[in-house]
Amino acid sequence: MNAVQPPLEQSFSVPFTYAVHFTEHLFAPQNPLFRDYLSQPSPTGQPKRLLFVIDAGVLSAHPTLTAEVAAYVAGIPTATLVTQPMGVPGGEAAKNDPALVDQLIDAIDQYGIDRHSYVIGIGGGAVLDLVGYAAAIAHRGVRHIRIPTTVLSQNDSGVGVKNGVNYRGKKNFIGTFAPPVAVFNDAHFLTTLDERDWRAGIAEAVKVALIKDLAFFEWIEAQAEALAHRDAEAMSGLIYRCAAMHMQHISGGDPFEQGSARPLDFGHWAAHKLEYLTHFSVRHGEAVAIGIALDTVYSQLVGRISAHDAERVLHVFGQLGFDLFHPALAENNSENLRRGLTEFQEHLGGQLTITLLDALGTGIEVHEMDFELIQQAVERLESKLMYNE
Amino acid sequence: MNAVQPPLEQSFSVPFTYAVHFTEHLFAPQNPLFRDYLSQPSPTGQPKRLLFVIDAGVLSAHPTLTAEVAAYVAGIPTATLVTQPMGVPGGEAAKNDPALVDQLIDAIDQYGIDRHSYVIGIGGGAVLDLVGYAAAIAHRGVRHIRIPTTVLSQNDSGVGVKNGVNYRGKKNFIGTFAPPVAVFNDAHFLTTLDERDWRAGIAEAVKVALIKDLAFFEWIEAQAEALAHRDAEAMSGLIYRCAAMHMQHISGGDPFEQGSARPLDFGHWAAHKLEYLTHFSVRHGEAVAIGIALDTVYSQLVGRISAHDAERVLHVFGQLGFDLFHPALAENNSENLRRGLTEFQEHLGGQLTITLLDALGTGIEVHEMDFELIQQAVERLESKLMYNE
Ligand SMILES: NC(=O)c1ccc[n+]([C@@H]2O[C@H](COP(=O)([O-])OP(=O)(O)OC[C@H]3O[C@@H](n4cnc5c(N)ncnc54)[C@H](O)[C@@H]3O)[C@@H](O)[C@H]2O)c1
Ligand SMILES: NC(=O)c1ccc[n+]([C@@H]2O[C@H](COP(=O)([O-])OP(=O)(O)OC[C@H]3O[C@@H](n4cnc5c(N)ncnc54)[C@H](O)[C@@H]3O)[C@@H](O)[C@H]2O)c1
Ligand SMILES: [Zn+2]
Ligand SMILES: [Zn+2]
Repeated sequence: MNAVQPPLEQSFSVPFTYAVHFTEHLFAPQNPLFRDYLSQPSPTGQPKRLLFVIDAGVLSAHPTLTAEVAAYVAGIPTATLVTQPMGVPGGEAAKNDPALVDQLIDAIDQYGIDRHSYVIGIGGGAVLDLVGYAAAIAHRGVRHIRIPTTVLSQNDSGVGVKNGVNYRGKKNFIGTFAPPVAVFNDAHFLTTLDERDWRAGIAEAVKVALIKDLAFFEWIEAQAEALAHRDAEAMSGLIYRCAAMHMQHISGGDPFEQGSARPLDFGHWAAHKLEYLTHFSVRHGEAVAIGIALDTVYSQLVGRISAHDAERVLHVFGQLGFDLFHPALAENNSENLRRGLTEFQEHLGGQLTITLLDALGTGIEVHEMDFELIQQAVERLESKLMYNE
Repeated sequence: MNAVQPPLEQSFSVPFTYAVHFTEHLFAPQNPLFRDYLSQPSPTGQPKRLLFVIDAGVLSAHPTLTAEVAAYVAGIPTATLVTQPMGVPGGEAAKNDPALVDQLIDAIDQYGIDRHSYVIGIGGGAVLDLVGYAAAIAHRGVRHIRIPTTVLSQNDSGVGVKNGVNYRGKKNFIGTFAPPVAVFNDAHFLTTLDERDWRAGIAEAVKVALIKDLAFFEWIEAQAEALAHRDAEAMSGLIYRCAAMHMQHISGGDPFEQGSARPLDFGHWAAHKLEYLTHFSVRHGEAVAIGIALDTVYSQLVGRISAHDAERVLHVFGQLGFDLFHPALAENNSENLRRGLTEFQEHLGGQLTITLLDALGTGIEVHEMDFELIQQAVERLESKLMYNE
């Protein structure tokens, strides 16, 4: 039979489109953006069913939000809330409790959310990862709108295509690739972030600038003081440009990461390890800043960039208020980092691929790292020798 | 800020390719097919890691399978079993127990299955749906190979892009669209199917033939007796053609079902209801045969096809050994069916869209059904009046 039945070859492409909108006070009655988005009548003529899920940290910083959302949606004839917005714990707790996934799936079931309804997450990257995951697996995917409320989620996690939850302590062990149908970045939410969350997300912008866009890096240098002093306009410019680069990277490359290249992981191999070692008391963006600093100094040590360029990177992080060293890096002669490198390779599942800098604004992939030089880079960060050179 | 920051528009397509291979005795030492598939060296030079998950019903019908798989893989230098093949309950039980999903996720974790390793499911459609789901959510998707062992899974569910499990009794409430990397249809497995599973899967072939391909329907008419007597060659021809049509439908249309059209759901609105009403004691394919019979008679009653054509459909189902009536359909003046139609519309989430026959080999979508005529069609099936006309 084998001979007479050649294999059937399947091949197709699945198109995805969505827009990331920028606004302020999305749910103010006079703001038409969200209303307009939902204003197309549905094929059945029935109002579109909306289930809102909101980060508890956002709810406590914006206590009138629930009422504003309810009032705003009441003013959209083509949409209806299936229930009052649900609160879920903010931060990593959102992703650590499997009962929360069940709670969302139950709500999707109970309130009759189908593939033509909308699940709308408002919150930081963690809550959006949870809500996006539940929306992706219920009915094999219901429509999902993200309203990110942190710098990191507005310029990075919230505008991309991934979701995930933790499983028995393993970060993002479970998840899918599932693009949202729309994203609404509301700058007003950023005003209530604490210092650390305001700062942390900036590291991802420094990252994309360093590996892809010298002009953007120079813009960040010029705006560093303004950003450090919570200037809203500077932040808005940073988020817009970073989100755009992140989205271009996704559409120009391998959106569902079917291959092995991970250029956006610049600085992330050490960052991941540091987050684990500190039980996530170091925020992702904080760890990324340290990881970038390390790989920048390493890039200098292998002769790819000048000491002057490396110092520019460390200097801008300093101006932004980042710490560039953590004691966990140096423990046991940096043995933690040696393990981190191995784990990163296992995570890639193939060849080790690390992004270094070939110039400010230009990343380059390498397939090995010299551990002695990594140790030297750690020592330099520790002693802040760099600043004295 | 709104004015100066136009929305960022994202748009990309994700390509998917896989082949469905046809063979017999896939794990016989002299069969090179599976070995060849895995023979490319991996980028790291490490053997590819394989986790097999096997339907307990298949294991009891093929007691030497585990040993054959282990011996076969031992002969592939570029691959390694991470553990002995795991057994999971066969049939709908596989999809009803959330602990099984956790058990597979745990195995993927414990045995270090990453995005470059393979999770390989061997079994009926239910086990493949379970294994495919776990593989799709672990690490946001690890490589998944399907080895379907029933007629239905070889010609329909196993060659497509969906997976799913049941949630609190709701069929397929949770799942994703996640194409396999390869499918291997091994005809030998079919020899151990019981009568009902051998027959049930044939209904899906009759379905695609009736809505898309008159010549295939005529081929099925010619082969009906051979199929009823478990002729392997006839079955092999039926599966190949049905799988090919199913795959063409996916690639030519809307692979991840982002729109509302569901032409392959011919006969399925009543079938779904009947499966529920009978607590799944009626098999999917058995219910589909009844649903097709109903919508075929209905197509005649509304004047789309002749009585002669309708009879040809009923006749071929009769030859194949299908029952074309179930008492649950007629209960309370077919009130069950009235509800089934409403539920199907809710399931589509938009306009009601039902496929009828416009001719043998030609489906046509309609957006309403006359309930009186549905009742008449049920009565005709019940009284088998059709045969006497
Ligand atoms: N899906 C992806 O592609 C992707 C990419 C990067 C990071 N992530 C994930 O994102 C998460 C981190 O997200 P994050 O940095 O946005 O932090 P976070 O979601 O952990 O939130 C941090 C804290 O800020 C609070 N908060 C959120 N918005 C607020 C606001 N406007 N005002 C006051 N408090 C507010 C939260 O309640 C929480 O306590 C991690 O889980 C990480 O894995 C996902
Ligand atoms: N994913 C999809 O696109 C899709 C499409 C249609 C149906 N399905 C699903 O497929 C499932 C039905 O699948 P099915 O019809 O293959 O039946 P099944 O998987 O329920 O298996 C039926 C029985 O046959 C046994 N069995 C399997 N292979 C055998 C073999 N070779 N010899 C002896 N016994 C064997 C099983 O253990 C089980 O007891 C349903 O859950 C349905 O929802 C999925
Ligand atoms: Zn990051
Ligand atoms: Zn079917």
